[in-house]
Amino acid sequence: MPEIKKVLIANRGEIAVRVIRSCRQLGIKTVAVYSEVDAGMPHVQLADEGVCLGEAASSKSYLVMEKILEAARVTGADAIHPGYGFLSENSVFAQKCKENDIIFIGPTPEAIEAMGDKTKARELMEANKVPLPPGTATALKDIAEAEMVAAQIGYPVMIKAAAGGGGKGMRIVYKKEDFASSIRTAKSEAMSAFGDDRVYVEKYLENPRHIEFQIIADTHGNVLHLFDRECSVQRRHQKVVEEAPSPFLDDDMRAAMAEVAVKAAQSCGYVGAGTVEFLADKHRNFYFLEMNTRLQVEHPVTEFITGLDLVALQLLVAEGKKLPIKQQDVTITGHSIECRICAEDPEENFMPSTGYLKRFKLPSGPGVRVDAGIEAGQTVTINYDPLLAKLVTYGKDRDEAIRRMRVALEEFQIDGCKTTIPFCHFTMLHPVFNSGTYDTHFIGSYYKPAELRMNEDVSHLAAALLHEHFVPEVHSAVPMNGKNKDPEFDEMAHASSLWWRNRRS
Amino acid sequence: MPEIKKVLIANRGEIAVRVIRSCRQLGIKTVAVYSEVDAGMPHVQLADEGVCLGEAASSKSYLVMEKILEAARVTGADAIHPGYGFLSENSVFAQKCKENDIIFIGPTPEAIEAMGDKTKARELMEANKVPLPPGTATALKDIAEAEMVAAQIGYPVMIKAAAGGGGKGMRIVYKKEDFASSIRTAKSEAMSAFGDDRVYVEKYLENPRHIEFQIIADTHGNVLHLFDRECSVQRRHQKVVEEAPSPFLDDDMRAAMAEVAVKAAQSCGYVGAGTVEFLADKHRNFYFLEMNTRLQVEHPVTEFITGLDLVALQLLVAEGKKLPIKQQDVTITGHSIECRICAEDPEENFMPSTGYLKRFKLPSGPGVRVDAGIEAGQTVTINYDPLLAKLVTYGKDRDEAIRRMRVALEEFQIDGCKTTIPFCHFTMLHPVFNSGTYDTHFIGSYYKPAELRMNEDVSHLAAALLHEHFVPEVHSAVPMNGKNKDPEFDEMAHASSLWWRNRRS
Repeated sequence: MPEIKKVLIANRGEIAVRVIRSCRQLGIKTVAVYSEVDAGMPHVQLADEGVCLGEAASSKSYLVMEKILEAARVTGADAIHPGYGFLSENSVFAQKCKENDIIFIGPTPEAIEAMGDKTKARELMEANKVPLPPGTATALKDIAEAEMVAAQIGYPVMIKAAAGGGGKGMRIVYKKEDFASSIRTAKSEAMSAFGDDRVYVEKYLENPRHIEFQIIADTHGNVLHLFDRECSVQRRHQKVVEEAPSPFLDDDMRAAMAEVAVKAAQSCGYVGAGTVEFLADKHRNFYFLEMNTRLQVEHPVTEFITGLDLVALQLLVAEGKKLPIKQQDVTITGHSIECRICAEDPEENFMPSTGYLKRFKLPSGPGVRVDAGIEAGQTVTINYDPLLAKLVTYGKDRDEAIRRMRVALEEFQIDGCKTTIPFCHFTMLHPVFNSGTYDTHFIGSYYKPAELRMNEDVSHLAAALLHEHFVPEVHSAVPMNGKNKDPEFDEMAHASSLWWRNRRS
Repeated sequence: MPEIKKVLIANRGEIAVRVIRSCRQLGIKTVAVYSEVDAGMPHVQLADEGVCLGEAASSKSYLVMEKILEAARVTGADAIHPGYGFLSENSVFAQKCKENDIIFIGPTPEAIEAMGDKTKARELMEANKVPLPPGTATALKDIAEAEMVAAQIGYPVMIKAAAGGGGKGMRIVYKKEDFASSIRTAKSEAMSAFGDDRVYVEKYLENPRHIEFQIIADTHGNVLHLFDRECSVQRRHQKVVEEAPSPFLDDDMRAAMAEVAVKAAQSCGYVGAGTVEFLADKHRNFYFLEMNTRLQVEHPVTEFITGLDLVALQLLVAEGKKLPIKQQDVTITGHSIECRICAEDPEENFMPSTGYLKRFKLPSGPGVRVDAGIEAGQTVTINYDPLLAKLVTYGKDRDEAIRRMRVALEEFQIDGCKTTIPFCHFTMLHPVFNSGTYDTHFIGSYYKPAELRMNEDVSHLAAALLHEHFVPEVHSAVPMNGKNKDPEFDEMAHASSLWWRNRRS
């Protein structure tokens, strides 16, 4: 395969920025694509070229394969990086890239296909002796069969969509009486989300922990794991806080899971970066959950502890080169934590929040990394994923990474919409998180919006400052032109920390 | 010694922010001090409390010992961190802290005194068999004696102020005829800078490289080195770009210098963080230059390659605790580079530049750290050091660190004053820097302002964007109140990368 000279990034937000940064560092030209509302966004600013795809709705822009392929043709891009979400796990798109002689930076269409169908993936894993949670390996014929399986493996059980992912079409059932209605809801949810209402039933685990292994594989048969990430702080099966390495694993369990993860990737002839997800229970059993055939949101924690650039490795493997490292070269140094900073209101059941960002000031300093996809002067809309930025910290140990995260969260200044910052701060202070003994029920069991301490802490700080030098200020409206602007935009209160502190959610 | 509960940071700008971050991470309360013009600065925002010291001039604020001691008494601070510059190497201040039962976070007054007088330090080093450059160990009686020494060691020679540092009172003399006038200039410069006109004469080295070793020592007799930094990109003996480890050293020379550095620190009973500076020549000889008895501007590159938090170690040692690491625990992983982003005009002989910062947007992403002491909406004045921020990158090797630095420099957006960003970018692209074979003459030998490529690169990018989606915009003046504000302040052009790119110096 030839060297990649120009990459089109078929995505937006922080992940597009992330990919562009590595491309620029490697001297590879970049093409951003964007919808009309995204015209001034950071990913467009950072790329060498930009192509507008159309209206805001993803279905008219970021999801339209033909528009993206056309943009690649027009700009002469020889490769497409799909990021995560959108077309990243779409085997048809990967196939179309191939047919158009464009390198799809990801696995083969066949591997995407094999891992995308959860029932097929389960069958493949079973054939390769990858441990699966007790339950059915195939989609269930009817409710009667499902009830029988549930009775057999014992309640609680989990109903899951065969075509699913991201928590859609999933239901936990604690007793027999609730089973029939739950399966009907799950099927109808699965149908509307995936156009496919097949479901299967699995044993629901006690104190489940979501632990996943990063995989990188080249076209020469080398499949490496880059160790584990723990993603058990979840809300409705959506990850909110991640860390690496997992505080749950000892060396033996880590080695056993890593071996299985590599086997899982090998079983589908995997090439590129991918993630094998597991659930572990309190008895230290672990079971295959699914394989994500793309770069993961939480990949930075792996980059911190291994010192590797995952996007650079993706590019190298996509060029057909051999991986420059062997398994024994990959070691864990220190500890890393990621907080997803989302435009959601943690005091109102994580409702999406939108608004014009008057202020968006990133924390920095030792061991702090921010991957942001938006900046001050831009608007958070309902069109896309609520992820505004990923705040990632690193420390020589878990304690230092947590301490750095607390301070970085306190420094992060966002004014214009509600964010998950106070929730993340709550988590970083919580004894159960600090002890490392949390499981996927952490939010359900411990999170009480009334206990958010961010505002309280902050007013204490502000009061101290007030006493010394606070000067009240008057702001005036700013008349303006241009897209993605707000008549109230100003960032004038820089000198007054009280001002932003009080207004931060 | 008791645990430190509250630290007063007797400094401003990025180093005050740096120290506050580590204190907050460790749960130690912080007190900022500030001059009237610094009221809204980041270091004041981040601290728990703030005390105004008085007028802008350092001589009326940051240098007034009694005001700072009074601020510590009023706020109940049990320790003072002096940062660098200002009172950080003032043995009288360290002594006064002691007399007031306040922990001075730094070495003893005696160690500061011993290393602060360059002649005394030279004598001490000579007694401890630390290699010194050929020349006089003591201050010279008169010009006649100086000329004799110069003739003896051979031209070129370097005249240096006994009380000096930072390039003041230094002169290189290439031939006998220029000696008398040079020594007169050096003496008069030394007198006005330090109130002490004693000078000495040293051999001037060929292809000199500035290489220094970070030291950390506790009160229990443990003295460790944290490896080396190369700081040979200098302008008038002021460092501009630093890196760790030095590309010049092999393992043997590194080990030999480290041993000498530890010996130098031991010779004055050193406690705390300090730096032993050397000059090495093309024959791989190395000579003691001086010891800085404080945290160094360029300490972040050491933090990146060792994974240690130097401020946290300073605090620990100041509490009288034993260092938690041994020499064999300290290893080098990867490579790190620092660029000093100063308010100076690289096209006009690095003249200081001032102005109101309309925009100050930090780069971020993998391997990027920014320690900034100012933010958008604040004013760069002539009162203090021109250092606005330190941009530090890390990579698995030197090449990756350089590539990341190039991209981070391109991302850094400062609008309101001229900065050294284009010069740093020039350096990152220069083949001599890239080869690692540069010496302290790099700027003098290779730097041509006409070759700054930043603007050119940038207009190329902007042109591509222009074609696709650029929308011209109209800005209006913003009426405002408050200190540290400018009637023209606006940050409205976020959506237009063309705008900032064209205006960035």
